[in-house]
Amino acid sequence: MYPPSIQKLIALFSKFPTVGPRTAARFVFYLLKSSDTEVKELADSLAGLKSAVKQCLFCFNPFEGEGDLCEICRNPRRNQTMLCIVEKETDLVPIEKTKKYLGRYFILGGALSRFNREDLKELRTEALLARAGQKEILETIIATNSTTEGESTALYLERILKPLGKKITKLARGLPLGGELEYADEETLGSALDGRK
Amino acid sequence: MYPPSIQKLIALFSKFPTVGPRTAARFVFYLLKSSDTEVKELADSLAGLKSAVKQCLFCFNPFEGEGDLCEICRNPRRNQTMLCIVEKETDLVPIEKTKKYLGRYFILGGALSRFNREDLKELRTEALLARAGQKEILETIIATNSTTEGESTALYLERILKPLGKKITKLARGLPLGGELEYADEETLGSALDGRK
Repeated sequence: MYPPSIQKLIALFSKFPTVGPRTAARFVFYLLKSSDTEVKELADSLAGLKSAVKQCLFCFNPFEGEGDLCEICRNPRRNQTMLCIVEKETDLVPIEKTKKYLGRYFILGGALSRFNREDLKELRTEALLARAGQKEILETIIATNSTTEGESTALYLERILKPLGKKITKLARGLPLGGELEYADEETLGSALDGRK
Repeated sequence: MYPPSIQKLIALFSKFPTVGPRTAARFVFYLLKSSDTEVKELADSLAGLKSAVKQCLFCFNPFEGEGDLCEICRNPRRNQTMLCIVEKETDLVPIEKTKKYLGRYFILGGALSRFNREDLKELRTEALLARAGQKEILETIIATNSTTEGESTALYLERILKPLGKKITKLARGLPLGGELEYADEETLGSALDGRK
């Protein structure tokens, strides 16, 4: 129905996460309305992305610049005894923003759904065990999401990390700041009660 | 927080319709995980988009190929007496799929919100009047969306098209196929009653 070069781009954008064919079509028509300069800027940025960005050899976070380690992992002032495991790259940012965590990270590469053990292959389990097993690491924080997948992943990680004999902690679950009891769901309130102190 | 080339791409994707910075970040991490070939394919398709796609001189629909007119407008078997006005490019496709309309189209370029007369500048009003005023056109179908903006636009179009003295019709509003009375909203049911026959 659309001309071939539009169809091609719709197909490519449809592979993006959360994007279906309709949204993909809206993207293409947005680009057709944009200036030539804007579209060229996007095309060039994409063309240069893969060569500009490297993956940190320790934590798997993408970075730019010299060496094999990202800014966090090569910073000697970061606490070398703590390792925080997150599901994906975008989960690291909010933790960094709190400025409360000064250790290193490990990006697991995904989460485990309760019913699909195929997901296991996606996770960097071996690399994680190699990092968490290093003798300088004293505590491993499991910072998975508070979702079914995140909780399954946390259970799995606890199981495989336990034999290392190090301290394992998890992010607290409870009422969010500003959260009112009246509007809290039972699960959240249950976690808040369990975690009371 | 992210490396510069990732930040740049997040900024560019954030300008896409329906995309915020979080979704944009997910897009970039999806691309970082994709193969070099896939990212190159996307970059190349984008780089070639603007030169490959032309806008039809009659209906403003994008097309590829020779000449100044799109496939629909240059097809002599299309009914030259009917003109169907749609808000945007993506609205033409579902109408074509019905195979019930064999006339030509006109892409208005947007809709009018009730409170912002600035939107008027976006609409191809002059071009529309030039097309709808051609002597071969006998009927103009206003096929705007069944939304507040679409209805405002339809009212506006009726007002400016009326002086041409041609037949003006609008898409019927009513129960969607498979729609149950019990679950229909009052507006829809009201339209279905008004349009009964």
